[in-house]
Amino acid sequence: MQSFGYAAKAANTPIEPFEFKRRDLQAGDVHIDIHYCGVCHSDLHMARNEWGVSQFPLVPGHEIVGRVVATGSDVTAFKAGDLVGVGVMVDSCGHCAQCHGGEEQYCEEGFTATYNSEEKTIGGMTFGGYSDSIVVDSKFVVSVPDNLELSAVAPLLCAGVTTWSPLQHWKVQPGQRVGIIGLGGLGHMAVKLASALGAEVVLFTTSPAKGADALRLGASQVVVSKDAEQMESVKNSLDMILDCVAAPHDLDPYLNALKTNGHLVLVGIPDSPHKSPNVTPIVFKRLSISGTSIGSIKETQQMLDFCGQHNIVSDVEVIRLDQVEDAFERMLKGDVKYRFVIDMKAGR
Amino acid sequence: MQSFGYAAKAANTPIEPFEFKRRDLQAGDVHIDIHYCGVCHSDLHMARNEWGVSQFPLVPGHEIVGRVVATGSDVTAFKAGDLVGVGVMVDSCGHCAQCHGGEEQYCEEGFTATYNSEEKTIGGMTFGGYSDSIVVDSKFVVSVPDNLELSAVAPLLCAGVTTWSPLQHWKVQPGQRVGIIGLGGLGHMAVKLASALGAEVVLFTTSPAKGADALRLGASQVVVSKDAEQMESVKNSLDMILDCVAAPHDLDPYLNALKTNGHLVLVGIPDSPHKSPNVTPIVFKRLSISGTSIGSIKETQQMLDFCGQHNIVSDVEVIRLDQVEDAFERMLKGDVKYRFVIDMKAGR
Ligand SMILES: [Zn+2]
Ligand SMILES: [Zn+2]
Ligand SMILES: [Zn+2]
Ligand SMILES: [Zn+2]
Repeated sequence: MQSFGYAAKAANTPIEPFEFKRRDLQAGDVHIDIHYCGVCHSDLHMARNEWGVSQFPLVPGHEIVGRVVATGSDVTAFKAGDLVGVGVMVDSCGHCAQCHGGEEQYCEEGFTATYNSEEKTIGGMTFGGYSDSIVVDSKFVVSVPDNLELSAVAPLLCAGVTTWSPLQHWKVQPGQRVGIIGLGGLGHMAVKLASALGAEVVLFTTSPAKGADALRLGASQVVVSKDAEQMESVKNSLDMILDCVAAPHDLDPYLNALKTNGHLVLVGIPDSPHKSPNVTPIVFKRLSISGTSIGSIKETQQMLDFCGQHNIVSDVEVIRLDQVEDAFERMLKGDVKYRFVIDMKAGR
Repeated sequence: MQSFGYAAKAANTPIEPFEFKRRDLQAGDVHIDIHYCGVCHSDLHMARNEWGVSQFPLVPGHEIVGRVVATGSDVTAFKAGDLVGVGVMVDSCGHCAQCHGGEEQYCEEGFTATYNSEEKTIGGMTFGGYSDSIVVDSKFVVSVPDNLELSAVAPLLCAGVTTWSPLQHWKVQPGQRVGIIGLGGLGHMAVKLASALGAEVVLFTTSPAKGADALRLGASQVVVSKDAEQMESVKNSLDMILDCVAAPHDLDPYLNALKTNGHLVLVGIPDSPHKSPNVTPIVFKRLSISGTSIGSIKETQQMLDFCGQHNIVSDVEVIRLDQVEDAFERMLKGDVKYRFVIDMKAGR
């Protein structure tokens, strides 16, 4: 079917209007009218081919919310009119150990990404959510609670589940102390989710100016990470730290902040290596440094249900499709609180 | 009470005969006649003050086996004549969260090491097992099964439990594939223990010559780590890797060898940093890099019981006290299969 969106046609040109074909509705598919799509940092990297894997034209967008228009004949979980979401994945192999275990994000054959992956039905590449509609296998569609501001739900589909998944995997519980590094798109969701899970949240930031906002979002304490004295004050006090900063940085001060058996979990991949972490505290406190990638479809649904119950959404700034390039520039300067979301019905 | 042993009197002189005082038997203590003491790499580092913390005179030795001579009035777990062992720890604070949880090795106040720690009863420093006898709090004494060759049991008290503890903590089970890096004092125990636990063991070594020995000790497969093709053949195939090499090395090829959710566990601390590990596989396979330090007293006892049932001991070369300096030199060249053990009754 015919779709309209915005695409990057090359790494060095602004994204621009683009007409393209999506596959016709298959028996297992859901056809979604897109209302909002979040603007993830990956979208910027991919539009500009900064990871060297982009195929142009490229329609970014993997924080998608909208309403079901139609469903294929095999679909029972959704019906026309339902509020739904689509995140980073639209398919996976379905038969590997990870897919069988409900962890499609670690599919051993590699999941099909919402954009810039092979479109297995009609060939070519998948196109993302900077567009008016999308057709997705119902197994990769989630229900969106109807009590939340829809524009602010969109970022939950990537930023939300990317921080939710490690909080679940490492079993964050009431009474635990959880550190979050960096108050950006991911970090601000991590603060909200961890505190709603009952943890005492310590936000680490290089910008003292972010302190007030962190406390408003649910942090109990703000630590300016450049201040050695403040860092020393949280020594050996945290059960887990979720590191939401992709830029290369020194992990050692965070290892010092962990209790015995603590976990430092990275969700960002630096483009040049972090300083090699000090093995001494890792051995003497049995620490781990690990990482996670987005989350499963099941976790995405659990996170959305949890957000519905706890009235959690992202802090967003709504824009039009023709403002995305400006948004990209502002993101590069860190000038967004905390996610841009495109209103697909605006300015058309 | 009066004891005899060998001590380092300075960092740059050979260890030599030394008469010294141990505390008299306290109500909770066990007095042990030492039969054998293993020679751990730490002994060499400490005798030569390579970690900068040595206090001289220093009596090394923390792989101690012998027979109980006498027990204090409060001791019920042991009686004269019992075969017993003492490892790396002889005391801990007893009241921190880790001590309460039975993990004295992570005591938040720092455990009392068998040598070169503060002797809390009579002052001065603790003296280790390169000596004829020792007096130790019964809570830090373990029972030694009587069906094993006693000289070959000694290394279980440090090398054995140091590899046993991570295999237990990460729940190694029959059918799992476990990698062991390095076939030395620690590595050869790790191969024996992991294979006795039912795991399929892959031994990584830089020396093809060690292959036959690894297979004899229980490995199913030997991978020469410098051979990229051999490393590629085990890609994504291991549940856990126990890294027994302290020298700085590249961890990335081992991250590639781990399955999704795999663990790379370090038991050695390099004296200069490892190359900074690649975050990409950590995130995309949810890997962890972690470490552990020796093991608890409870784990030490479980390991000894397991070794008794499975007839597992260390491969050792028995020497006299006056041969320790030669042994140190041979250890530096890797010329030992796989542990020197001092016979305290020989050559006196
Ligand atoms: Zn994203
Ligand atoms: Zn799969
Ligand atoms: Zn040792
Ligand atoms: Zn303690």
